[in-house]
Amino acid sequence: MHRTKVRVVEDALDANNTIARANRADFDHAGVTVLNLMSAPGAGKTSLLEAALARPLGGGARVGVLEGDVQGSMDADRLATHHIPVVQLNTGNGFGGECHLDANMVRSSLGQLPLDEIELLVIENVGNLVCPAEFRVGEDARAMVCSVTEGEDKPAKYPLMFRACELVVINKIDLLPHLEFDLDRLLYHLDAVNPNARRILTSARTGEGVEELRDWLAELVTRAPAVV
Amino acid sequence: MHRTKVRVVEDALDANNTIARANRADFDHAGVTVLNLMSAPGAGKTSLLEAALARPLGGGARVGVLEGDVQGSMDADRLATHHIPVVQLNTGNGFGGECHLDANMVRSSLGQLPLDEIELLVIENVGNLVCPAEFRVGEDARAMVCSVTEGEDKPAKYPLMFRACELVVINKIDLLPHLEFDLDRLLYHLDAVNPNARRILTSARTGEGVEELRDWLAELVTRAPAVV
Repeated sequence: MHRTKVRVVEDALDANNTIARANRADFDHAGVTVLNLMSAPGAGKTSLLEAALARPLGGGARVGVLEGDVQGSMDADRLATHHIPVVQLNTGNGFGGECHLDANMVRSSLGQLPLDEIELLVIENVGNLVCPAEFRVGEDARAMVCSVTEGEDKPAKYPLMFRACELVVINKIDLLPHLEFDLDRLLYHLDAVNPNARRILTSARTGEGVEELRDWLAELVTRAPAVV
Repeated sequence: MHRTKVRVVEDALDANNTIARANRADFDHAGVTVLNLMSAPGAGKTSLLEAALARPLGGGARVGVLEGDVQGSMDADRLATHHIPVVQLNTGNGFGGECHLDANMVRSSLGQLPLDEIELLVIENVGNLVCPAEFRVGEDARAMVCSVTEGEDKPAKYPLMFRACELVVINKIDLLPHLEFDLDRLLYHLDAVNPNARRILTSARTGEGVEELRDWLAELVTRAPAVV
């Protein structure tokens, strides 16, 4: 029974990887760099994107967003008011209400995405620190947002997520004076699971660190593989 | 393919419910009331339990905790320093690193739990607002913690979780003066998905609301079904 379960999970991940490679080929063909952006619920992914994408990126790369949620379109609506091209993908709409995006869900949205008009696609994953890290969707890079309000221990408790990401954005730092939060302790736990992760400290509210995040996004586009 | 997936999921939930009923029978037999406590990562479940269980509950009910995490025992260690009987359950330890507890995982821990010495068992689930709500584990009641730092929109984005719980603890209210957070807006979204949910506003840090939570826990024990 246990063996069967392991095999089913492995088969599912294999199938996912096959579709992720097909997505990746389509993104490469369209010359679009793709970022898979993950976090716990309420860490501030959408607020950061609003702050970072309110003005054109350095280098002029145009950006689109694929907004993943179990249900609803609140975040997509927020981004649309900033005239950011955004497509909503609900896992509750024919995908069993899954707690993460997978390659097949992203593939189902390809036809709605304006791939010919953008150079960077940000996929905002479902808020969850576990399963989104297990499913590749055809991305070039993975980043996560970690809010200081969540405590210092999250890298130790959710190591796969922190290990999967090359960038960890530490958000809501405007609240630090009001928290018993030891930044060094968070970084200690992060170093233990992913010492090479780039770290950017941000506050979507005050704008602190947002320019550094914008620079990272602009650089991500330039380091993408050449258009097929 | 899609039909097969639906059937596999339904079979898995049926199997889970069968084991959950067996757990429930064992808990009833031991005269233990069980609370399934859920939240997003970092909402403050453990801090609230530390605050609420530092002194004996009214009515004298003894409390044990089953601590669910993907990995590690940081929360269990915290609770153990308060002399609260606690058993660690890691989903990364033979359960595939699942993002939630299920009835079988809880069943595997029954032998370690001091059921004869407690009247209330709090099962602290994995931090996740999606899947934990789908898996019954044999509990009498389900409650969740929602931090005001997560924003007002969470009931609309994760309706199944908010609907599954009879109590919603709104935590970290000491931070309200420092946030752009509209409590009425959170309650509006909560009313839309679960108007009957009891709400308790708390701060684990200042202790505000903790007495109300302790009263709720004490009352939960007294309303449990009679011992089989």
